[in-house]
Amino acid sequence: MNVIMDLCVIPMGVGVSVSEYVIGCHQILKEAGLKTQLHAYGTNIEGDWDDVMAAVKKCHEKVHGMGAPRITTTIKMGTRVDRIQTMEEKISSVVDKKD
Amino acid sequence: MNVIMDLCVIPMGVGVSVSEYVIGCHQILKEAGLKTQLHAYGTNIEGDWDDVMAAVKKCHEKVHGMGAPRITTTIKMGTRVDRIQTMEEKISSVVDKKD
Amino acid sequence: MNVIMDLCVIPMGVGVSVSEYVIGCHQILKEAGLKTQLHAYGTNIEGDWDDVMAAVKKCHEKVHGMGAPRITTTIKMGTRVDRIQTMEEKISSVVDKKD
Amino acid sequence: MNVIMDLCVIPMGVGVSVSEYVIGCHQILKEAGLKTQLHAYGTNIEGDWDDVMAAVKKCHEKVHGMGAPRITTTIKMGTRVDRIQTMEEKISSVVDKKD
Repeated sequence: MNVIMDLCVIPMGVGVSVSEYVIGCHQILKEAGLKTQLHAYGTNIEGDWDDVMAAVKKCHEKVHGMGAPRITTTIKMGTRVDRIQTMEEKISSVVDKKD
Repeated sequence: MNVIMDLCVIPMGVGVSVSEYVIGCHQILKEAGLKTQLHAYGTNIEGDWDDVMAAVKKCHEKVHGMGAPRITTTIKMGTRVDRIQTMEEKISSVVDKKD
Repeated sequence: MNVIMDLCVIPMGVGVSVSEYVIGCHQILKEAGLKTQLHAYGTNIEGDWDDVMAAVKKCHEKVHGMGAPRITTTIKMGTRVDRIQTMEEKISSVVDKKD
Repeated sequence: MNVIMDLCVIPMGVGVSVSEYVIGCHQILKEAGLKTQLHAYGTNIEGDWDDVMAAVKKCHEKVHGMGAPRITTTIKMGTRVDRIQTMEEKISSVVDKKD
């Protein structure tokens, strides 16, 4: 089962700047070979459900390992069985019709 | 690693009423032996990360199996390594101080 | 237009415990006369769109005023025009069918 | 008060394809003169709190007007008072350090 996810991991108790933790997560996502797209309020990920979920768990483990005592994560994720859809198609379905 | 999750599974393409799908998910969460609390915009779940995530996957599989061609899910989830915290403590930390 | 909202306000840069900020928000919601229900990962709110949104803004202003330099908030919110639905009905639509 | 928001509006009861509704929302955001960036699981918006919130309300009104009896929306939004931050800076704070 393929999933398209929007992942936003927020370390708590580490001060106001969290970019180093986001970078730590991106390294994990890259190492996992997942398709990703960073945006201004999270990271979109596309891949097999188990692969994506394993990477999300590693992100929590790494961010805790980097010193964050607490993490709150917000995820949106979509699956569909009627057809295969990529992140690019989700965007082009809006952009192409709009033009 | 323990996780407290707020899970909201939205089937798309099945009409406006989705309560039967929510019930289907609750059966899975119960069978998984997870601690749950239904609220007006989702279900709170507490348990071991892998157990909770396995149940979330089963929810998607079941909701698709019930006929939903597409699902969009919103999750908030928290982990902490400084101390153990339960769903009840999260609520009482607010209610008890308020009184 | 009525809205049912799940609100979760996370102050950043203030340490790991955030319950005092949640309490600050609850005071605002109460003063606004909104129907609320605290749960383990947020607060459900029901009311007129403008009243609810005005209260959310006041929550951000208050939490900043309490010393949080940065806030990240996650909201789920639902509106419907086919019929009126309350938070209680959303829960009972699941609980009653399940039994 | 400036806000950076990630907005995801999901019409329910209208079938499996929702791109026309997303386009309807984008027209509103454009007409409002807000800075926006579409991504694969929502739209990032930057602007004054009141302007952004007024546009979100118009999105719900328009999507209902287009025929959706029910809408569920997920929002992440951030405010900060320690300094001004743009959507571009949020991305570059990660990309620049990573390289």
